[in-house]
Amino acid sequence: TRDDEMDGSIEALRKLYREGEEELLREYFEFLRFSSISADPAHREDIRECCGWVEKTLKAMGLDVEVWETPGHPAVFATHLKAGKDKPTVLIYGHYDVQPVDPLEAWSSPPFEPTQRGREVYARGAVDDKGQLIYTFAAIRALLRKTGSLPVNLKVIIEGEEENKSIGLSSYLPQVAGKVKADYLIIPDFGILGRNDPAVTLGLRGLTALTIELEGATTDLHSGMSGGIVYNPNRALVELLAKMHGEDGRVLIPGFYDDVATLSKEERSSLSLDLKREGYDAIKAVIAGQESGFSPGEASTIRPTLEINGLSGGYSGPGFKTVIPAHSMAKISCRLVPGQDPEKINKAITDFIKKTLPAGMRVKITDHGGAPAVWCSAKTPVAQALREAYSEVFGKPCLFTYSGGSVPITSALSEASGAATAFFGVGLMEDAVHAPNERFDLDRMELGFLIVARFFNLIGQK
Amino acid sequence: TRDDEMDGSIEALRKLYREGEEELLREYFEFLRFSSISADPAHREDIRECCGWVEKTLKAMGLDVEVWETPGHPAVFATHLKAGKDKPTVLIYGHYDVQPVDPLEAWSSPPFEPTQRGREVYARGAVDDKGQLIYTFAAIRALLRKTGSLPVNLKVIIEGEEENKSIGLSSYLPQVAGKVKADYLIIPDFGILGRNDPAVTLGLRGLTALTIELEGATTDLHSGMSGGIVYNPNRALVELLAKMHGEDGRVLIPGFYDDVATLSKEERSSLSLDLKREGYDAIKAVIAGQESGFSPGEASTIRPTLEINGLSGGYSGPGFKTVIPAHSMAKISCRLVPGQDPEKINKAITDFIKKTLPAGMRVKITDHGGAPAVWCSAKTPVAQALREAYSEVFGKPCLFTYSGGSVPITSALSEASGAATAFFGVGLMEDAVHAPNERFDLDRMELGFLIVARFFNLIGQK
Repeated sequence: TRDDEMDGSIEALRKLYREGEEELLREYFEFLRFSSISADPAHREDIRECCGWVEKTLKAMGLDVEVWETPGHPAVFATHLKAGKDKPTVLIYGHYDVQPVDPLEAWSSPPFEPTQRGREVYARGAVDDKGQLIYTFAAIRALLRKTGSLPVNLKVIIEGEEENKSIGLSSYLPQVAGKVKADYLIIPDFGILGRNDPAVTLGLRGLTALTIELEGATTDLHSGMSGGIVYNPNRALVELLAKMHGEDGRVLIPGFYDDVATLSKEERSSLSLDLKREGYDAIKAVIAGQESGFSPGEASTIRPTLEINGLSGGYSGPGFKTVIPAHSMAKISCRLVPGQDPEKINKAITDFIKKTLPAGMRVKITDHGGAPAVWCSAKTPVAQALREAYSEVFGKPCLFTYSGGSVPITSALSEASGAATAFFGVGLMEDAVHAPNERFDLDRMELGFLIVARFFNLIGQK
Repeated sequence: TRDDEMDGSIEALRKLYREGEEELLREYFEFLRFSSISADPAHREDIRECCGWVEKTLKAMGLDVEVWETPGHPAVFATHLKAGKDKPTVLIYGHYDVQPVDPLEAWSSPPFEPTQRGREVYARGAVDDKGQLIYTFAAIRALLRKTGSLPVNLKVIIEGEEENKSIGLSSYLPQVAGKVKADYLIIPDFGILGRNDPAVTLGLRGLTALTIELEGATTDLHSGMSGGIVYNPNRALVELLAKMHGEDGRVLIPGFYDDVATLSKEERSSLSLDLKREGYDAIKAVIAGQESGFSPGEASTIRPTLEINGLSGGYSGPGFKTVIPAHSMAKISCRLVPGQDPEKINKAITDFIKKTLPAGMRVKITDHGGAPAVWCSAKTPVAQALREAYSEVFGKPCLFTYSGGSVPITSALSEASGAATAFFGVGLMEDAVHAPNERFDLDRMELGFLIVARFFNLIGQK
């Protein structure tokens, strides 16, 4: 009966999900087919088409939609503000852009041809963030269809540059600060601790990223003729990068830890930061090298890190080439915790590089921008409502956790909206987010749908 | 008059060269158009076609030709044995294969579309070794055409894998050891000290090369979620490679210098090993980092080196990707001096790698083979005749020098032939051998032709 379906119970919502799964899947596959890689200028048109698809989809759901032409890629802003003044306003932030796909040869099916195997769907963006958005959209649409209304006032921002430091939206945000005011900000871009281990995420790390290019000559050289004469920029690069970590896993950039915030005992005790090893064991990951004095779970969430995300220089094709390359290159990034200022950290790294390189070696450092970390309170209504929703859907107590990842706009958006913030999602380590064969399963698609729908009902009552 | 042309004087030979330059150029361009990259299996067919061209060309010159089907790429063996038993037998060794061409975008014209600008010809192989072979072939042909004979008995080996450790010919050589016997072995794959500074090369360094692949997990990981948990194979790689050199530029692989030969005072005094800085200054090369206690000219010829020829791992495209890669890779090679055994050095490096890597990090090491160094005597007739030829052609005294480069088969071929060996050529540092925009000029093409022709006349009289 209509009453049953509308009682908001998990069973009623589950029925709603299953009725809509076919439509959801059709939409999901459409969304996944856009190769919306924000970091690569070659995909500018794909990004724009994907943005158009989001605009059309949110409009068809009954939301009022506008497109923000930021200096970077466009963002979609949608609202449904009909719950009344006594109801809270919830702001949802997500992103339609995706990470690059290389190494392409490691994919078992093409990254932009979504492929279902059993209950799993393989594609770039299957989870991050298209999968997490699809169940969020579906839950909102289901509530609207059944009741004609929502239990809260809703604002939605879906942008196209989250994977590229939100460059456009960051500089555009001040112009639309008045529009984004909200009581609660939720960001569906996160995970749970295990398939049956619910958790609400309250902390994100910040980020800063640099490309380092060295030049030892204006042309490649023969390593026989010139080996022993010139300083190989590959050697200068590995010597430089090797000096960035101590044997104890600590980052050796002077000043790196100066402003690092620490958690109070109480804050720490409410968090589950234990590493679930199973996922890492399954991919034979070498769990080692972290900052001494901290567990892997802590080192990956409440402590900053420095990683070498890319290395190149000289010949890496088949066979061998006895070359001393003209150039070498590294991409490095740091995950930051509260207190650390991305610009200050970038400057410290830049100073270190310039001081450490051998005399005469030319260096070009490109700053890819950064974002500060965010730690949210567990005591807000939004954190409590999310925890309650997870508990009900999983049928067990839900923990709080911190993520090691970053959503660059979070700090700025949290401030501009004035909203209490919390993070959610149903991702798992084994989803291969940012890696080849990214995948999501429809069981978690359903869990996500249920969490969003329950959250709306719960927060509407707070 | 015919007598003038045949008197063997430089002027007569110069006339011969100029009469034949058009034909030589046509042939040179044909030869350069084969993309005969031996290291890349994708070019197997181009290699074979290039071999066919060499076979046809030597046959047309009047030589008896056979093709050696080695386990690798084929080699051409040609002879002209009509000078009589009282005349010496000269064996010439060269190669028709070339180095890979990347970075392709750095070429100002396509590497296999030879392009003449003024007196310069740009193409992969313009010097190494197609250019050096073209003038050698032309000189032999000119002598044969004018006199119907040669002043020596001639054997020629032109192979297709010099740039890939002569893998095929090395294992094939014992089968044809009887055919390669000679009094003198000359290898036209070398240079002069400057445009007006003649030199005969008497020493080559040996070579050994490895590819090192690290695996830290079976899939790429998100550097936010996993940064602080897993040991990034990029980090393990730079830490490993950075430990291979000391601050004093010495190689720190245990045992690396154990068997290094040194020159006697007399040998050293007859060599010109001063670095000509102009070529390096022109390409803004950082001249630094060499083994302390040795000049750059010494460090690049009579001392061994270790170079990182290739680095890769993670994302190196536009923008940024916050990935911890599953794999990282380096290609390293050592130039060796007499006394150092390539296999022993390879084993020392392999042991060092395995001992140095963090526990759990998987490594795959591919041995690309090696070759020992060769130092030849300055007192042999072949060294003396080459020096005399250079002196006459340049009109000034000619020095002896050592090259920092390697010709992998030299040691084996020198032994199999029983021949006194010396190296020659007219290459210059600025020719960009093994690099983008490799080039050669027709002035040196003429010099090379004159040296070969004079050498034949001189050695025929010894």
